[in-house]
Amino acid sequence: MMKMDVLTLFPEMFSGVLGSSILKRAEEIKAVSYRVVNFREYSDNKHQTVDDYPYGGGAGMVLKPQPIFDAVEDLTAHSESKKPRVILLCPQGERFNQKKAEELAQSEHLIFVCGHYEGYDERIREHVVTDEISIGDFVLTGGELGAMVIIDSVVRLLPDVLGNEQSHIKDSFSTGLLEHPHYTRPAEFRDMKVPDVLLSGNHRLIDEWRAKESLRRTFLRRPDLLEEYTLDDKQKKWLQEFLKEQESDKKKS
Amino acid sequence: MMKMDVLTLFPEMFSGVLGSSILKRAEEIKAVSYRVVNFREYSDNKHQTVDDYPYGGGAGMVLKPQPIFDAVEDLTAHSESKKPRVILLCPQGERFNQKKAEELAQSEHLIFVCGHYEGYDERIREHVVTDEISIGDFVLTGGELGAMVIIDSVVRLLPDVLGNEQSHIKDSFSTGLLEHPHYTRPAEFRDMKVPDVLLSGNHRLIDEWRAKESLRRTFLRRPDLLEEYTLDDKQKKWLQEFLKEQESDKKKS
Repeated sequence: MMKMDVLTLFPEMFSGVLGSSILKRAEEIKAVSYRVVNFREYSDNKHQTVDDYPYGGGAGMVLKPQPIFDAVEDLTAHSESKKPRVILLCPQGERFNQKKAEELAQSEHLIFVCGHYEGYDERIREHVVTDEISIGDFVLTGGELGAMVIIDSVVRLLPDVLGNEQSHIKDSFSTGLLEHPHYTRPAEFRDMKVPDVLLSGNHRLIDEWRAKESLRRTFLRRPDLLEEYTLDDKQKKWLQEFLKEQESDKKKS
Repeated sequence: MMKMDVLTLFPEMFSGVLGSSILKRAEEIKAVSYRVVNFREYSDNKHQTVDDYPYGGGAGMVLKPQPIFDAVEDLTAHSESKKPRVILLCPQGERFNQKKAEELAQSEHLIFVCGHYEGYDERIREHVVTDEISIGDFVLTGGELGAMVIIDSVVRLLPDVLGNEQSHIKDSFSTGLLEHPHYTRPAEFRDMKVPDVLLSGNHRLIDEWRAKESLRRTFLRRPDLLEEYTLDDKQKKWLQEFLKEQESDKKKS
């Protein structure tokens, strides 16, 4: 069973997300256990402060090393895994992606350190943390949402967590292309119709339509994904079509 | 006041995040109002189903158009803003970043549509949605965490939401470089010392150290950011130093 510990000053942020849907079920089937800890409890000073002014001056507060060092050491001492991954959420970190999720899913114990509009004392980064991760180039109020994103993406990779019904969403990155469009009933909704081919019952044509629309969507929205993708002959022909369509669209406008 | 509505099958996921810290305070000072709606309530069939099998076969379920169309129309009818932005969270969407957060912060009304391990009927994308957004190249169980990430990054940009104490974290992307290291008391913690310059009281030297370390961190971790950054003469000299250090490190190893 994987252990996931979260160090945060806002533990109440996590209850809704960890207590719903697949993250909840994963804990019920003992694929994972969560523990959300307020690291203020580890502060050794009488006012239980966890931050202080930055040396050298400037705006903002900085998280002190002591509470984080002590909290991580306490959680590690009670771990069977001798080497937990200690993940710091911050904009300076390595960019999170599906490959990193798969790597983290191999660990026995993850500890997330979430600051909340403070900076981190550099000694935390250098001596406690094993992975600094950013979920993207945008500013969030704290590391908590980043931790939840990583937890969700990792837990759904653990054995037995996804049922058959859910597992198809793996597809969206595993093929290397974006997914083709989906349609369900009714075949006509407010004059908007489902493409005829999907109602034809001809599975060869349906598969071909889906493959082509998957390539088209990738070409239009994420051409960067095609750089690392090996096209077969049919796909090369389709790509020529899309390029010609794009050119004639440009001339029209 | 900005309105933010969320359509989801898991409304309980949102309470912790929207009810804590700055997102809570933003609602208290009437900078924003949140409404989290279970769109199953809008289903017009007696079993209140919201999804169905995909036309053309295949694994997984697809969200039907009717409940989403009706929910968005109802929320729009009660809006003073005639044109709310309707945001679909999905891996095929435009990549979220700080620029997009700033753009969305100009809107009066945002509606988030969150699927949860289902696909979306294509007619929803084509006729209801104004923005398809992905927060990164990783697979999540549903759109809910993506919606929370966008809400957090947008709300903190609204007027009067951040106090002075918090506003310094804007810095991490606005300078175009990563932040320099931070240190706070104690000056020595378990033999780990704060750099002397930060204790010197010499603000010219402190500013110079910070500027150099900010550049060093960007060079080492996110060289892609330097491509869009204009270096001054001092920074060019430092960059030469970093390159030489890197070369001599390589020779040693």
